[in-house]
Amino acid sequence: MRIGVLGLGTVGRQVVEVLDLERELFAARLGEEIEVTRILVRDQDKPRPQSMRSRLTYEPDDILKDPDIEVVVELMGGFEPAHSYIAEAIRRGKAVVTANKEVIARSGPDLSAAGERAGADLLFEAAVAGGIPIIRSLQESLAGNRLRAIYGIVNGTTNFILSRMHEDGVSFDAALAEAKERGYAEADPSDDLDAVDAARKISILASLAFGGWVDVDAVDRIGIRSISAADVREAKHLGAVIKLVARAQATPDGLALGVSPTLISRSHPLADVSGAQNAVYVCGDPIGELLFAGPGAGGPATSSAVIGDILDAARARRVGGRSVALPLEPAPLLPLHAHQHSYYLRLRVREAAGTLAAVAEAFSRAGISLRSVHQPPSSDDEAMVSLVTHVTAREQLERAREMLRAEAAVLSEESCILAELDTDSQRR
Amino acid sequence: MRIGVLGLGTVGRQVVEVLDLERELFAARLGEEIEVTRILVRDQDKPRPQSMRSRLTYEPDDILKDPDIEVVVELMGGFEPAHSYIAEAIRRGKAVVTANKEVIARSGPDLSAAGERAGADLLFEAAVAGGIPIIRSLQESLAGNRLRAIYGIVNGTTNFILSRMHEDGVSFDAALAEAKERGYAEADPSDDLDAVDAARKISILASLAFGGWVDVDAVDRIGIRSISAADVREAKHLGAVIKLVARAQATPDGLALGVSPTLISRSHPLADVSGAQNAVYVCGDPIGELLFAGPGAGGPATSSAVIGDILDAARARRVGGRSVALPLEPAPLLPLHAHQHSYYLRLRVREAAGTLAAVAEAFSRAGISLRSVHQPPSSDDEAMVSLVTHVTAREQLERAREMLRAEAAVLSEESCILAELDTDSQRR
Repeated sequence: MRIGVLGLGTVGRQVVEVLDLERELFAARLGEEIEVTRILVRDQDKPRPQSMRSRLTYEPDDILKDPDIEVVVELMGGFEPAHSYIAEAIRRGKAVVTANKEVIARSGPDLSAAGERAGADLLFEAAVAGGIPIIRSLQESLAGNRLRAIYGIVNGTTNFILSRMHEDGVSFDAALAEAKERGYAEADPSDDLDAVDAARKISILASLAFGGWVDVDAVDRIGIRSISAADVREAKHLGAVIKLVARAQATPDGLALGVSPTLISRSHPLADVSGAQNAVYVCGDPIGELLFAGPGAGGPATSSAVIGDILDAARARRVGGRSVALPLEPAPLLPLHAHQHSYYLRLRVREAAGTLAAVAEAFSRAGISLRSVHQPPSSDDEAMVSLVTHVTAREQLERAREMLRAEAAVLSEESCILAELDTDSQRR
Repeated sequence: MRIGVLGLGTVGRQVVEVLDLERELFAARLGEEIEVTRILVRDQDKPRPQSMRSRLTYEPDDILKDPDIEVVVELMGGFEPAHSYIAEAIRRGKAVVTANKEVIARSGPDLSAAGERAGADLLFEAAVAGGIPIIRSLQESLAGNRLRAIYGIVNGTTNFILSRMHEDGVSFDAALAEAKERGYAEADPSDDLDAVDAARKISILASLAFGGWVDVDAVDRIGIRSISAADVREAKHLGAVIKLVARAQATPDGLALGVSPTLISRSHPLADVSGAQNAVYVCGDPIGELLFAGPGAGGPATSSAVIGDILDAARARRVGGRSVALPLEPAPLLPLHAHQHSYYLRLRVREAAGTLAAVAEAFSRAGISLRSVHQPPSSDDEAMVSLVTHVTAREQLERAREMLRAEAAVLSEESCILAELDTDSQRR
């Protein structure tokens, strides 16, 4: 079986290397040889491995229009031209394997429908959580379940930063600098820090898990730029850790979707996921709770997923289609104001009689009960109050925040972070 | 699509209930209805749910010979008659879904080859680690990897017992009694306690992961009956926890296979798997390390896996075969004497000058270096010495143990337990 690869970055190079190196192993597993015959690159001047040079091309049609190439592996990243190439390959009946979460999150349903019409498989295990086989598991192994929720740590960059802040008390800026140094963060890390990347991934996971398409713009998105060392300390005080959690929760009134920094209890399975690791936590019936954890990004993990899909596409040629079908119909969504969560807030307040009463009164008038309050001793005329609410609707929270802003005793709101201090099973 | 179910125990009942209840959901997911038309039971006098009574039969042929039944779901457990029924269903070209690890571990390759000849799918995700999708993941998502090792906590009963001993310091007997009370241990728990169940599961996982058949008798098997509260305390002292770990490790000279109580470091991902949970930890290239954790047994988890397989079998009728192929050729095995591990030993010794020197001398003469030694203060003429070796071949360990037995200062060997105190990545 002949394969064309679009893009020869870190992942592309590793995929080609493994396919070259393990040719015999895969031939034995599949009953036929897999051969990368063409590799599309853009930059003509970049040095390339000797073994790949004869296969390079600068012309996409050399791959897309080659009738001998049956599988196209797209590893360029970015929306265009990757999207057009994928669409063209599918139109020509070629199976497509891609790691491109941007293309899948924006155009997945159209491409998957086009694939169905053309009899072309579209596989994208590598697009979410790297080497963790979550796409295939949601699509097949867990298909007998009614899922209640998915919680994911699906962005390695932000998890690395938050882990460093938690473990060593370093500032956000220092942790970000270290992530860049180690190659975990790109030169422009906005998509990671502002939760754009995680939003794409949860929209793909939710679409597969709950059977309706979730547009990435429907995902409530809060990044990690405002997380301070003080918040990390307060989280520790609460027996918790701050993670960027992507969530999709089924409610009777629709899906609640969001990505935001979240305080999770140290006893929650996601709390142990540290460094650039990824993890996905699935709750449903009858399964109960399931955790997948592993490397979420990087060449090796991503190429494991890509090659798994390539082998699958090869098997599918003999035994039939293996496409991952994305739904075209939009999923019903719970409006943001009705999202139900606990929250952690940190307020800078005037150190004076009646301050705490005024704060408590604001929450009480919004109909929110407090789960815990922490005010460390302060030596001057200002103090810090950290509090955690019980589960409340977002609109009630906003009402309380508005009252706090109008309250003279409250100097400023320093943080407002989602808190999931119980596991799903404890909550029920 | 019509289904026949063999066996109506806890899992069987839940599978039928979910298929009945979620008929519309699954019809939407699949594009066709799934209907359980016949259920084989043995005991005519047992009370059965009203909704199932009209479908009961006491005659296996009512299912096996019914040409309208396309999928047979075997949930009886035990080797015979389950094995014969599965073979007969396959011979008749029916897809078979089973949770029966005994049948798969003993006759998997023959049944899978017969299925290939007859064009009948054989699916058994539920046979290992309940609701955790490890079979499918090894077979497909991870097929692009060269795996180095699999470590599994795949027996919920023993993990519950060891967790109770670790968390509350209770004795083995007390923990076993509690496991029976809670329904985690059967009246005769020998298969669990003596690691027979876990050996079956690792033989299935290893056969899928390493591409050669592993006979269950090739798995070195040590149960948990001899684990004492003193060992649990010593493990804690070492920053470790004792788990029944099933392992399959690839070495240049063959697979090393075993199930035994194992000291694992508290920082190892498997250390957090507590209670009746299961987990499988996979190491390979290029993937790195991957953890799957979730409910390993019980009606809900097992029925999630069984129904996932049923839906897969249904899809396969339209798009082609989905069988999990087990290899017929035996895997090359590393002989037991060459297995390489660290070990924890606890010795009862005479409290006298020269005792520790004599103990250390025995290890030294066997060519084993010690990683740590712990001798708590003792008030009488006896003392307890706990020690952990560096990695050594089993035959060297046995030589040292023999010398210790011959040593007058050593009154008895109280325990000898495998120790994996580093994660796979730390070891490399």
